[in-house]
Amino acid sequence: MARYLRPMSDPRPAFVLVRPQMGENIGAAARSMLNFGLEHMRVVAPRDGWPNERAVALASGAGRLLDTAMLTESTQEAVADCTYVFATTARDRDLTKPVYTPEAAMAEALARGRDGQKVAVLFGPERAGLENDDIARANAIVSVPTNPDFASLNLAQCVLLMGYEWRRLATGAAGSEMEMAGTDWVNQAELEALVTHYEDRLEQAGFFFPEGKAASMKRSLRNMWSRMPLTRADAQIFHGILRQMVRWKERG
Amino acid sequence: MARYLRPMSDPRPAFVLVRPQMGENIGAAARSMLNFGLEHMRVVAPRDGWPNERAVALASGAGRLLDTAMLTESTQEAVADCTYVFATTARDRDLTKPVYTPEAAMAEALARGRDGQKVAVLFGPERAGLENDDIARANAIVSVPTNPDFASLNLAQCVLLMGYEWRRLATGAAGSEMEMAGTDWVNQAELEALVTHYEDRLEQAGFFFPEGKAASMKRSLRNMWSRMPLTRADAQIFHGILRQMVRWKERG
Repeated sequence: MARYLRPMSDPRPAFVLVRPQMGENIGAAARSMLNFGLEHMRVVAPRDGWPNERAVALASGAGRLLDTAMLTESTQEAVADCTYVFATTARDRDLTKPVYTPEAAMAEALARGRDGQKVAVLFGPERAGLENDDIARANAIVSVPTNPDFASLNLAQCVLLMGYEWRRLATGAAGSEMEMAGTDWVNQAELEALVTHYEDRLEQAGFFFPEGKAASMKRSLRNMWSRMPLTRADAQIFHGILRQMVRWKERG
Repeated sequence: MARYLRPMSDPRPAFVLVRPQMGENIGAAARSMLNFGLEHMRVVAPRDGWPNERAVALASGAGRLLDTAMLTESTQEAVADCTYVFATTARDRDLTKPVYTPEAAMAEALARGRDGQKVAVLFGPERAGLENDDIARANAIVSVPTNPDFASLNLAQCVLLMGYEWRRLATGAAGSEMEMAGTDWVNQAELEALVTHYEDRLEQAGFFFPEGKAASMKRSLRNMWSRMPLTRADAQIFHGILRQMVRWKERG
């Protein structure tokens, strides 16, 4: 198929800020993009011109996104080379378009990006959001599922959430519980040693009383220990606690 | 099953801002929470006192979260009634705890919330993040998978992402409820009582030696206890073990 003949290209989507107003928000958007490894910013007709000092100041470590941003006069030019365009909007529009969750949209963006396509995500100006003419250029709408009674997100927040979803899906972190790094869990022999240590000492200390209940008390204790997610270090601490209590007793 | 006999309670987690500095960020955090339908804010020792005018100004429509926020002097008090505590942190710590993605953490929070448990998520101060002593109180860590070369998120961004994940799962993940039928987990106050009981007795027994290492030994111990999935019955067993060892000693 033709697509395999294409050179490998960067699968990351371009984030397009359409007529952004405050330089602060442009800078914050750049930071939010870079937080999630996205670097292709495009800026359409920024209200206060370009470059924008406030944007540069607020971008701090993400300034190179502004340096390399594509600047255009119109949304049309900004997405001219893109094969798929999402428009972010909180509101229901009367335009008939597929509406994606951020997760579904970024999954689509990722799949298309990996297929060599260029994908753009449009973000509207702070107050008004995207105009219907911008939305009409998009293939689909992305809408963040916010609280309907308190729905408004600002520009940088919207960029942050889309970036988060992109990276979550791109790195395969979706759904995964990370492991405790380098954790050294006890094996069954070590667990047995701990159970026995406690059983023996508690026996001496008269813990299993009355005798008729001793067996079931021991079973609960073993059950509890084996249910604990114990590391080797934890087991050493529990051994140490008990040894110290015995030493204390023996000192009298 | 026992849990169906309990009154329906609010399954939403509490977001705990620990020693927040700028009022602006507290206000922005309130907005971010309400964007995703979360309303239980707790504030630990805010730098500039409480109420905070800048926070109120920035919260705009989300001011009632500040009005109803629980204010405490310490993290310990803030989570006393919670059965499960997450600590958000970007950095690798040397404390052994499970590390969750935001998605996995909010899935866990949702399941526990629906089970009638109270869950808290700790957010650290803007610059420094949570201290190890706060993290040691948590059952698990949540870490946002950011670009390692540009990892830092601010307080309100971190709140926004956790809120987003919570709502995404709460509104969409029907049927993913985890079963933890009838299990009666310790709350933080009960955990604290256990930690203190062991700390006090082990102190008497000379466990924390040499003195220069006592603080870090206590922290590891607290960290271990808070990582254990302890039921109330487990806690009673551990109290009982220690009481018995002391009785044994006292019998001489």
